[in-house]
Amino acid sequence: MKDKLRVVVWGENVHERENEVVAALYPRGMHEVIADGLREREAMEVSTATLQEPEHGLSVERLERTDVLTWWGHAAHGAVSDEIVDRVQKRVLEGMGLLVLHSGHYSKIFKRLMGTTCSLTWREAGEKERVWVCNPGHPIAAGIDRYFEVEQSEMYGEPFAIPAPEEQVFLSWYEGGEVFRSGCCWRRGNGKIFYFSPGHETYPIYYDESVRTVIANAVRWAKPEGRWIDSCPQVPADQAAERISVKGPRLHQEGEEGFR
Amino acid sequence: MKDKLRVVVWGENVHERENEVVAALYPRGMHEVIADGLREREAMEVSTATLQEPEHGLSVERLERTDVLTWWGHAAHGAVSDEIVDRVQKRVLEGMGLLVLHSGHYSKIFKRLMGTTCSLTWREAGEKERVWVCNPGHPIAAGIDRYFEVEQSEMYGEPFAIPAPEEQVFLSWYEGGEVFRSGCCWRRGNGKIFYFSPGHETYPIYYDESVRTVIANAVRWAKPEGRWIDSCPQVPADQAAERISVKGPRLHQEGEEGFR
Amino acid sequence: MKDKLRVVVWGENVHERENEVVAALYPRGMHEVIADGLREREAMEVSTATLQEPEHGLSVERLERTDVLTWWGHAAHGAVSDEIVDRVQKRVLEGMGLLVLHSGHYSKIFKRLMGTTCSLTWREAGEKERVWVCNPGHPIAAGIDRYFEVEQSEMYGEPFAIPAPEEQVFLSWYEGGEVFRSGCCWRRGNGKIFYFSPGHETYPIYYDESVRTVIANAVRWAKPEGRWIDSCPQVPADQAAERISVKGPRLHQEGEEGFR
Amino acid sequence: MKDKLRVVVWGENVHERENEVVAALYPRGMHEVIADGLREREAMEVSTATLQEPEHGLSVERLERTDVLTWWGHAAHGAVSDEIVDRVQKRVLEGMGLLVLHSGHYSKIFKRLMGTTCSLTWREAGEKERVWVCNPGHPIAAGIDRYFEVEQSEMYGEPFAIPAPEEQVFLSWYEGGEVFRSGCCWRRGNGKIFYFSPGHETYPIYYDESVRTVIANAVRWAKPEGRWIDSCPQVPADQAAERISVKGPRLHQEGEEGFR
Repeated sequence: MKDKLRVVVWGENVHERENEVVAALYPRGMHEVIADGLREREAMEVSTATLQEPEHGLSVERLERTDVLTWWGHAAHGAVSDEIVDRVQKRVLEGMGLLVLHSGHYSKIFKRLMGTTCSLTWREAGEKERVWVCNPGHPIAAGIDRYFEVEQSEMYGEPFAIPAPEEQVFLSWYEGGEVFRSGCCWRRGNGKIFYFSPGHETYPIYYDESVRTVIANAVRWAKPEGRWIDSCPQVPADQAAERISVKGPRLHQEGEEGFR
Repeated sequence: MKDKLRVVVWGENVHERENEVVAALYPRGMHEVIADGLREREAMEVSTATLQEPEHGLSVERLERTDVLTWWGHAAHGAVSDEIVDRVQKRVLEGMGLLVLHSGHYSKIFKRLMGTTCSLTWREAGEKERVWVCNPGHPIAAGIDRYFEVEQSEMYGEPFAIPAPEEQVFLSWYEGGEVFRSGCCWRRGNGKIFYFSPGHETYPIYYDESVRTVIANAVRWAKPEGRWIDSCPQVPADQAAERISVKGPRLHQEGEEGFR
Repeated sequence: MKDKLRVVVWGENVHERENEVVAALYPRGMHEVIADGLREREAMEVSTATLQEPEHGLSVERLERTDVLTWWGHAAHGAVSDEIVDRVQKRVLEGMGLLVLHSGHYSKIFKRLMGTTCSLTWREAGEKERVWVCNPGHPIAAGIDRYFEVEQSEMYGEPFAIPAPEEQVFLSWYEGGEVFRSGCCWRRGNGKIFYFSPGHETYPIYYDESVRTVIANAVRWAKPEGRWIDSCPQVPADQAAERISVKGPRLHQEGEEGFR
Repeated sequence: MKDKLRVVVWGENVHERENEVVAALYPRGMHEVIADGLREREAMEVSTATLQEPEHGLSVERLERTDVLTWWGHAAHGAVSDEIVDRVQKRVLEGMGLLVLHSGHYSKIFKRLMGTTCSLTWREAGEKERVWVCNPGHPIAAGIDRYFEVEQSEMYGEPFAIPAPEEQVFLSWYEGGEVFRSGCCWRRGNGKIFYFSPGHETYPIYYDESVRTVIANAVRWAKPEGRWIDSCPQVPADQAAERISVKGPRLHQEGEEGFR
């Protein structure tokens, strides 16, 4: 493959500009802090993109050159254009990795790829979250001990309306008494998808070393391993692997594309 | 639950009216023949719905009273309203069963629930298809021997762009040399989903006894076992299971709904 | 099927006889209390079996007549005969349901069916466990609100060395700070398997109404839906679905059984 | 990690010595031919081991230094010592990759890791097998076109009694009319497992370039990505993450190991 993993950190970039608390924590935007965490950990080629840029910063060409995309959104999921969601989904199915962060559980792209509502329960009380490792040998948990703690966190609790995770990497415990599947893996097409729940914008969570380690691990885990651009091709009878002749009536002509 | 399973057989009902070959095979429409196959097998309450009806025959009230929905579409997937797709998806996630038949692999609702393109390869040559049972004890294969044959079938071949099936019930062999995952199960939310590939409209496949047996079995398998209408509720700090007090800054107010 | 579900509650029955605390809580054995919980909930045909009986109470004939088996063991996993484990595994693969309770995570039969070590972390401190529902529409969670609490429980914590659960029904929160996948579903062959962790013998957990509800729900969920007694048959060339003639050298003769 | 992947190709090495046909095709044993195919493809450190060696060539030390193990056996599954099976299973769960080849479907180690019977149907008629790619972007299918053919193959047909594959890479079509899940992926613990069915010993299948490509791809895919040696540790109450005091009666003492 290439020498350096090419990562795009996407940020909605709304609360950082409109809410004083968030602006004070993340004056350059959350996306820049997430990107810094990746840059300090490995020789990745990390850039950022935001909702406000043309095409939300995700042109066809840029996505084509992206190995892994991370996604943080919250207040403006509805403002993300369906065309860009189609485009990101297409790249994930082809093989691009996707990290969905915190309130991104309700983003169009995550709901699109999961097929479910992705709802959960929540509480914004600054309570402690303890993130437990379910598989100490999993590459996304590398460098994390049995658990790490987030001193102030938004509670995200079960039921979390997702398809069964293919790998459960983390589960969270909350001071207020809830639990949550906080680190989950799926594959869709050739793309690997990781959802990671810590990351509420009113707390300095993306400065946390353990959180940064997990995100960097997950980016490496999600790197493309192959690519397939699928279509829905007709295989004409005279090109069948076994010799056959056409029998019976037909709707379609040779070489036709079929209905979509 | 209720005494009789309430089944709605949905048909696109286009080729039956516009193509002579299909009209000759299915003068009352394919949906009526699929429905007949169910009615003759068990005391189900079976009705039909088509694209041309108001709300495509799938009003909120009707879906609310539906236990299992079967879906056949081909030429007019794009004509299905997104609002109806949202509505069907919601009911599946709540617990309604869904059977997706043949060219329905490219329907909006199937792609929505799978999160992938659902593409495949195909050939309309009237070749023989042999449908093999992968698990002779599976309820959807009840009454089927090691395999059954469809004398004339449209070839649907791999790669089939779907998430890994949770259960593989059938695999198909084709005269022209291909293979296909022709009977696949998934759960999304509380809904059970079964995809079954035989059913091209230019051949009399829905009159076939084995095909009818499979569809009736699958309808019984897909019946609701529970229901959950999810939301994304805030759990206020004073209602937490453990006593906590709010710490730190907040974006949301008590009782607020959150961003969507 | 049959009118009444036939359930066998298997108990190791060691601590109840050897430990004063356990004997005081469960004077007739834990298995009898678990069986009572089932009997009071539905018209099931419930009987018990213990380690000390001939063939551990699990003769071929009895297992043949069993729809669902529940398994509790702790101190004497090693005393369970491999022949009986083979027998139970065979019946599960054929279609018999299996509930594995608490310390049964380390039983031979559970490790056999999972293929992994099934290890976990633990602490016997009588702390509070709160069992959360991950899918309120799942039949195993019927009748349970958002969660239920076990006032005194043994802590079972992550990492839990299991294959990814096919359905996550419950997750537990512990007073001491841990979390655990406390209610997990798998299918192996045609058998449905449910692991449920609450049930330490020094606390009166199997008298708890919520625990009893879950176990009764799980028994109903795990009931057989079909049966397959598999073998590894040779299909002679002259019985192939397509006409073929034997080409090339062979190791085996027609009708032979093959190596095992 | 290390520079070179360390691969051990395990062969039963019975038919090569006892059957003239097999001896003529594989005079140095099948394991040496499989190993050659790996060596010619990449700078792996490839060695072989056989049933007849002390500890079947799989000492604790050697397995400790093995990244990926490939397994071919047929006539002598029963001669493999249970102690070695335990040892291989332990290493797979820790993270070692495992490729199970052809008749290895009935090996002790594969049945151990799957938890099912792993039975199938079969026919030794030298018929053509066409191996189809289910996901052209999967790393195990790299370099393979839509399909490849094995001119003479033993038929392995459905039903194949395995847990649902986590990824389906290949499906096979047979001249005699059957189909088979011929390339399947699972993870157990931290080990990746790939089953690949072509490879009957009376045909020169392991000299085939496509088969060699698949095996080399699969070895790379199965390389360890992390390691976990699990135990089942007690977490004493005074080391709990949250402050708790012991309540109620106990079976175990602080620091005790627990029952196994």
